[in-house]
Amino acid sequence: MDVSQDVTIHNAPGRAEALMRKMWGGRGVFTCTIGSTLTSTIPGVSDAGDTPELTLYTPSADVELLVHGRTICMDGIPINPGGIPTPATVTMAALSLSGMPFHIINGGVKVLPNIPYFDVGGQCGRDIRSGDAVSNVDECYQRGVILGDMLSRSHDFLVASESCAGGTTTALAVLRAMGMIEENLVSSSSPNNPKELKDSIVSEALKAAGIEFGDLRDDPLKAIACVGDPMMPANVGLVVGAARRIPVILGGGTQMTAVLAAALALDPSIERNIMVGTTRWMINDPNSDIVRIVRSIGDLPVAAINLDYSDSPHDGLRAYERGYIKEGVGCGGSSIAAVLHSAGAVNVKSLLQRIHSDYERIMGMD
Amino acid sequence: MDVSQDVTIHNAPGRAEALMRKMWGGRGVFTCTIGSTLTSTIPGVSDAGDTPELTLYTPSADVELLVHGRTICMDGIPINPGGIPTPATVTMAALSLSGMPFHIINGGVKVLPNIPYFDVGGQCGRDIRSGDAVSNVDECYQRGVILGDMLSRSHDFLVASESCAGGTTTALAVLRAMGMIEENLVSSSSPNNPKELKDSIVSEALKAAGIEFGDLRDDPLKAIACVGDPMMPANVGLVVGAARRIPVILGGGTQMTAVLAAALALDPSIERNIMVGTTRWMINDPNSDIVRIVRSIGDLPVAAINLDYSDSPHDGLRAYERGYIKEGVGCGGSSIAAVLHSAGAVNVKSLLQRIHSDYERIMGMD
Repeated sequence: MDVSQDVTIHNAPGRAEALMRKMWGGRGVFTCTIGSTLTSTIPGVSDAGDTPELTLYTPSADVELLVHGRTICMDGIPINPGGIPTPATVTMAALSLSGMPFHIINGGVKVLPNIPYFDVGGQCGRDIRSGDAVSNVDECYQRGVILGDMLSRSHDFLVASESCAGGTTTALAVLRAMGMIEENLVSSSSPNNPKELKDSIVSEALKAAGIEFGDLRDDPLKAIACVGDPMMPANVGLVVGAARRIPVILGGGTQMTAVLAAALALDPSIERNIMVGTTRWMINDPNSDIVRIVRSIGDLPVAAINLDYSDSPHDGLRAYERGYIKEGVGCGGSSIAAVLHSAGAVNVKSLLQRIHSDYERIMGMD
Repeated sequence: MDVSQDVTIHNAPGRAEALMRKMWGGRGVFTCTIGSTLTSTIPGVSDAGDTPELTLYTPSADVELLVHGRTICMDGIPINPGGIPTPATVTMAALSLSGMPFHIINGGVKVLPNIPYFDVGGQCGRDIRSGDAVSNVDECYQRGVILGDMLSRSHDFLVASESCAGGTTTALAVLRAMGMIEENLVSSSSPNNPKELKDSIVSEALKAAGIEFGDLRDDPLKAIACVGDPMMPANVGLVVGAARRIPVILGGGTQMTAVLAAALALDPSIERNIMVGTTRWMINDPNSDIVRIVRSIGDLPVAAINLDYSDSPHDGLRAYERGYIKEGVGCGGSSIAAVLHSAGAVNVKSLLQRIHSDYERIMGMD
């Protein structure tokens, strides 16, 4: 196994290497858990959609893209203001090149996707400033555990990921409720990370819920119920249920660190099977620090796929190099998993080729 | 491979043997697609529940039993009048002994199960006497195909099954709409098969839909939309999507023959990968004839698990020998699959032991 050209390790290299050897050539399964929170419609919070209202369509449009190669619930693919395409364009390439099986989990969305999906009984989340953000948390978590266990019987490793607009704000709130890290190090799909707005929303949310920093260190499900989003309970359960038996890549940016913190608090024994899988763009982001957040949770491996759009002929893709998007829909985790699942037959070069041909087809350039 | 003690072949023995060799020791996955049709609440039609109204709880209670080992949506396990336990008690044993992964698909039920399940956009079905029985048929079928394809990437064979009360009546209607077989050979979970009632309901349904015998030979989805039930579209899609790549056991009694006929009409190329898997009780039923129905569709293998409750100390189980229940929830198919998946480590003897210990636990006898 030599993945040094394609994957860079940014924490716990020994454990990362051992886990990747275990996954090499094995049967992987990719999952993406979708959720909506009305927090994403607060103007300025989320750029994961052309307008605040369209952020509620983004999760379902993303997974329709993965399943059908086109969107159904809305016209065109999800874009950030300025026309920069969803990271699902990367995930699509990783899944189709590798042939890896994948399943979508509905943690609770406002707009249902036109695909077969796992339902776990979740609902769209409320604005976290209510201090009462998510319903049915225990139930969704328990069903996630069952699902993770079931998928771990059929596969050698699993990727957990998310599409949930507004999710870095809810992640910051959960990380603070659990006392993981005080500093605001979460990322944004915009290079102009609205840190002050996120801080003020999170403060208001924690105050409304009567939570001080670290109060819910041992009760992550309560933290999620108060100030999280509906992507979290199902995904935390999925990670716990699967990682008891097989390696799990938490695919994503700083949103997934809240899932990571909650899963490890609920079952510390899974630590040996956990790796964070993200992108070079996320690692290079000057306005966030995923590695420091992960280290605040545990000394866990962080791997990044070396995708680089500097030489892309398309401005929408080169924008990733200027700090737009960077992560989401498990684009980093699915790319790393594609390399491992295919035992290196898929690599950064073939991924870049496929991303470009897919992008040109979707944008009607071909 | 020697399964002669455990499995008996009742049609196309050469193809059965070849398919079973292909599945022997492979990674199986069991699925059960649930659905409700208001047809089951017509008094006298269905005994799959203690009362006509309880037949609407049976599918969800059955799959809760598989996932949790107990029911949540109702008290106690589904029983026929007289206290005879659901065939899910057999499926439970097959799944737990073999450790085979399994997934539940919600084709469209009245009462949602408290488990994670695949949603395909289906709804509870209407009384078939309306001639307009099932909504969203094309959509559910297409999503079933996607799901079958996805599961075929991760597994070496798949079992498709059903829990849908009233389903032999809807199956008879679809078989007649497709012109498969005129005679009423479908079974019943009661030894007193209400054949005249079923015939009159089916005649009324076909008349309401303006369908003559065989009119919809080439349009099975329309037959299902008019006179079928919501278990069917998802399950037909699942079978088509999976059997394009891997062997599929259609687990069940005469209800599943409507799924079989529809799947083969939609994609005849899957024939090479199809086997019907049922029980000795179904084969021995003097009031129905699954083998003749299957032969009217094609020269397909029919295998039966040799479960025999004659020596059971429990009257509720011995009732199966007197013609009660006989099939359902893929009890025959899951048992055959358990033998194949475990390469013979699970057999009729170990299944009988587990069924008895589970039954005694559930009934509070242990």
